[in-house]
Amino acid sequence: MAHEIPVKVRFSETDALGHISNISYFIYLEEARVEFFAELGFGRDINNWKIILASASCDFVNQGYYNQKLTVQTRVSKIGNSSFQVVHEIKDTESGELIAKGQASAVHFNFQTQKSEALPEFHRKQLERHLIKEASPHEN
Amino acid sequence: MAHEIPVKVRFSETDALGHISNISYFIYLEEARVEFFAELGFGRDINNWKIILASASCDFVNQGYYNQKLTVQTRVSKIGNSSFQVVHEIKDTESGELIAKGQASAVHFNFQTQKSEALPEFHRKQLERHLIKEASPHEN
Amino acid sequence: MAHEIPVKVRFSETDALGHISNISYFIYLEEARVEFFAELGFGRDINNWKIILASASCDFVNQGYYNQKLTVQTRVSKIGNSSFQVVHEIKDTESGELIAKGQASAVHFNFQTQKSEALPEFHRKQLERHLIKEASPHEN
Amino acid sequence: MAHEIPVKVRFSETDALGHISNISYFIYLEEARVEFFAELGFGRDINNWKIILASASCDFVNQGYYNQKLTVQTRVSKIGNSSFQVVHEIKDTESGELIAKGQASAVHFNFQTQKSEALPEFHRKQLERHLIKEASPHEN
Repeated sequence: MAHEIPVKVRFSETDALGHISNISYFIYLEEARVEFFAELGFGRDINNWKIILASASCDFVNQGYYNQKLTVQTRVSKIGNSSFQVVHEIKDTESGELIAKGQASAVHFNFQTQKSEALPEFHRKQLERHLIKEASPHEN
Repeated sequence: MAHEIPVKVRFSETDALGHISNISYFIYLEEARVEFFAELGFGRDINNWKIILASASCDFVNQGYYNQKLTVQTRVSKIGNSSFQVVHEIKDTESGELIAKGQASAVHFNFQTQKSEALPEFHRKQLERHLIKEASPHEN
Repeated sequence: MAHEIPVKVRFSETDALGHISNISYFIYLEEARVEFFAELGFGRDINNWKIILASASCDFVNQGYYNQKLTVQTRVSKIGNSSFQVVHEIKDTESGELIAKGQASAVHFNFQTQKSEALPEFHRKQLERHLIKEASPHEN
Repeated sequence: MAHEIPVKVRFSETDALGHISNISYFIYLEEARVEFFAELGFGRDINNWKIILASASCDFVNQGYYNQKLTVQTRVSKIGNSSFQVVHEIKDTESGELIAKGQASAVHFNFQTQKSEALPEFHRKQLERHLIKEASPHEN
């Protein structure tokens, strides 16, 4: 089950080549992630933030444009002890054309102790609801 | 009659002080402007863009936050021969609290000749529909 | 006496019209301001930040380009009890061509009490060293 | 032989968690790439741009801060027929601490025909000068 957000490409998110800046895709992927994390129950409180990112990547499949309506779908590809991985697909909302694919590794993190912590059972169950079938869960 | 757009504050649009970055307000004002220009009939074609900005300003009235739903209202405050001015209000969508006020001077511009051009009558009429009453029209 | 910083235009700071995005000028002006504030003795500690911005504006005089080397000059135009105003000039470093002019109103602010505070005498003296002669100091 | 650029973290490149935004690392990696491409002889002319990005990724190793002086080193990890890969290390300039590692796949692209083209021999030789020894060249 994919988590979905709509994204509207802002003018300032283009670059001098006339397309969406490569940078902006990472803005959209971050937006999809933080929305997904909030839905999983990690909250939106900046002073009690619980997730850090270990890595992020994006494959640029087709060029995107100013004013394009995009949909970012997020699924879970792996669940570890204190970390998990998500994969994203950015598609043109109308045509369904694949614009970009993303991936990120997130860590359940305690900013006070500056250490990672095991994922609480509640969040693990939430993550499993979004786990793609091909992936094997519970690996690190 | 105000033109309105909704804006959702992206995580990347905050800064280390925990609020919306001052910079991001200008992203929202630009977004409001380009949407407004498109509605006025200036089009969205990057290769046939017709408006340049002479100036932009923003008064930061109340602090804005990540994930806040904002509404940007745009009105016309002055119509000149080849230029016009808009004023914006950025409000919290739910409470109506004023977050920021903006202003911009726009010029009808020919990128080929690199010169300003008189506003076509069609666009002038469109602009007048959004003119605030207190302002005196047709000044330069 | 103007405070000066060099700025190199990043590729991501352009937009689809092929020039520096209007937004990016505000990034450069902010960069000039925070460097200036640090030189004035306000420090760089995010957890003990002392200045908020009341307003910012920019006049776009000439188009700027990717990879352009810019210099941002900052001067003080007005010193009030708890606030002050700065003016900026953004110039092409090599030719000296004026690219943009900026202005900002800053307030000496206590984030704990969420109130403005009178400018300490030390910082006032620092500000006066950068005050432009035409301006009349000590107004609010 | 690594290509190097200095990067100064701008205030607007932080986010509400008080660190460099994940997004900003991709700004620095892009900046390192476009500088590297220019040094390789691909030019800086927006109207005659020759490289598109197929993918980009970043591992966030240590947290970065506002005002930090960073150095981005770029090396070539693979050279194909029309494409090549680069790897980056972002380090604290003073301490040498590793802050992030990046990777990108670039394609020699003709924007007129919208097709990839074989890397010219001149550029291939330039790329080889920056090839890391462990990698095997001339693969696709």
